[in-house]
Amino acid sequence: MAVVATYSDSQPRRASVQPLVDLVAAGMSDVNELILSKAGSNVDLIPEIAKHLISSGGKRLRPMLTLALADMFGYQGDGHVTLAASVEFMHTATLLHDDVVDESDMRRGKLAARKLWGNQASVLVGDYLLGQAFKMMVDVGSLEALHILSSASAVIAEGEVLQLGAAKNIATTETEYLRVIEAKTAALFAAAAEVGPVIAGQSNAMKKAARTYGMELGYAFQLVDDALDYGGSSADLGKEVGDDFREGKITLPVVLAVARGTDADRKFWSRCLEGESIEDGDLEQAIDLMKKYDALSETVERARTYGANAMKALEALPAGAHNDALGDAVAFCIARVS
Amino acid sequence: MAVVATYSDSQPRRASVQPLVDLVAAGMSDVNELILSKAGSNVDLIPEIAKHLISSGGKRLRPMLTLALADMFGYQGDGHVTLAASVEFMHTATLLHDDVVDESDMRRGKLAARKLWGNQASVLVGDYLLGQAFKMMVDVGSLEALHILSSASAVIAEGEVLQLGAAKNIATTETEYLRVIEAKTAALFAAAAEVGPVIAGQSNAMKKAARTYGMELGYAFQLVDDALDYGGSSADLGKEVGDDFREGKITLPVVLAVARGTDADRKFWSRCLEGESIEDGDLEQAIDLMKKYDALSETVERARTYGANAMKALEALPAGAHNDALGDAVAFCIARVS
Repeated sequence: MAVVATYSDSQPRRASVQPLVDLVAAGMSDVNELILSKAGSNVDLIPEIAKHLISSGGKRLRPMLTLALADMFGYQGDGHVTLAASVEFMHTATLLHDDVVDESDMRRGKLAARKLWGNQASVLVGDYLLGQAFKMMVDVGSLEALHILSSASAVIAEGEVLQLGAAKNIATTETEYLRVIEAKTAALFAAAAEVGPVIAGQSNAMKKAARTYGMELGYAFQLVDDALDYGGSSADLGKEVGDDFREGKITLPVVLAVARGTDADRKFWSRCLEGESIEDGDLEQAIDLMKKYDALSETVERARTYGANAMKALEALPAGAHNDALGDAVAFCIARVS
Repeated sequence: MAVVATYSDSQPRRASVQPLVDLVAAGMSDVNELILSKAGSNVDLIPEIAKHLISSGGKRLRPMLTLALADMFGYQGDGHVTLAASVEFMHTATLLHDDVVDESDMRRGKLAARKLWGNQASVLVGDYLLGQAFKMMVDVGSLEALHILSSASAVIAEGEVLQLGAAKNIATTETEYLRVIEAKTAALFAAAAEVGPVIAGQSNAMKKAARTYGMELGYAFQLVDDALDYGGSSADLGKEVGDDFREGKITLPVVLAVARGTDADRKFWSRCLEGESIEDGDLEQAIDLMKKYDALSETVERARTYGANAMKALEALPAGAHNDALGDAVAFCIARVS
């Protein structure tokens, strides 16, 4: 297992999500059961699509954050399970709508729901899952958790609209891009983490630390994903590369490479990403340009900084197995790309 | 003004929405202000689209129900204004997504948002408005109102998915169709009405009566709309007809005409609505068939029955100006088509 040094002055972290998975295994089994039951409906198409997405094997990192950050405080009820399932529904609804908006064909190595059931069903089933998510949150009865999660919901949609404006525009700045990922990724990580201490009735200091942990991890997670889409900073690739490139998505590696490139480079980026005219060899050239201008290594470097901020936030939270596991998850997230 | 007899044994109702408009005018001014402020965002596209929809002059019947049914009990806070604005946001979000799903070109006589800004923006701005709606409801702090409105949100989406299955299928039964309109129209009318007594801290009996009033009015409203789309039961038309027909929508007049028609009629309906092959004169033939089989007059008759049920529900609610105005609104709704 890779060993990653952190800013924390404690021992090096294991780069693994396994300790977190093990700690919340019982709770996640309840979350999965609740998800399958709440994705049910007399309208057959709804469970069909929901199960396709839910069983397609996402990491379920967000609901695990909620569980771990409630368990950390010895929370004894089952509100954290319901909130965790709501968070996963919000995420799933976003994926359904995202695929429609991005016109994506694939999701997690499978055909996207919109390719199997159409855009119309994807929009409406997303709406249904969002409605179910809110119903479940209301059942928990915490107005504070409701406030956090409904705010995240509005912020995510705002981020998606913002991204729509930035899409296929290579003049997008780093600041603009970071604003997009704060809204569309980090905000839900932050909310998922914060509702843990909220449901456990903890102090504002604990809530704030949990929120910061989630937010910084969310940034790191997204930037690592962005780098992985171009193969990461090293040559060894863990996933198929080029999806973002083929969809004309402007991500941080692109923003950095464009900013540092020549006029000729900019013409290349514009043709590929704005003009969507991609030829054989273009992906390789994009990766070469990113390496030439250190765009991938700097994206990873920024992810590392956000990861260090997440570790720092953990210091304010109670020490113990949960704290360690959340730290290992940060290291794991970064190690995917290192 | 038309005078419409009702099942109530009191005096005949004025068929007008004006008394309701006048009674809640001050509250609706607050609702409109709140709507414009909450449709704001740093992301320019959001207020642009939201204002296009919000200023395009819907009747705002749903938020008026919330206000009137809280005012009726002497409610003194401003929670009803916030809930009313949330209800209108939920409705607006549904319209945005509906137009994408139905591939509609027009909405309330203007180009649909999706024609002006694209399907992608319509999906995402709808999501934003829904997120804002939930945030606003949470601000009010009534878990009971949250439960009612979030349940409505899931039911509406469920109804839309159900309608997707029924779309372009002339074998849709009356039962199936009524289930669709209960979910996609009546449920939000019911929720909008019910949260009035909820926020005013009233008894379960009052909440139930308000909910029944809203539900039955919602059914009546939708069936009248369905009939109006084919010109109503009489020859005098108040709006452009044929939109539903051209979009291949299966509504009650179609369901009734198909069920009573000959095999040749069914071939006609199938060509027009399932095959989407519409020729000159087809709309006129559709209307002729509906009249021949009393499909329009029976649709109106059913609307009248739902309207009478709504009036009956009002009898359980406190008498006075608000009660009268809500009754006049039912009569108005029916009179549009009589």
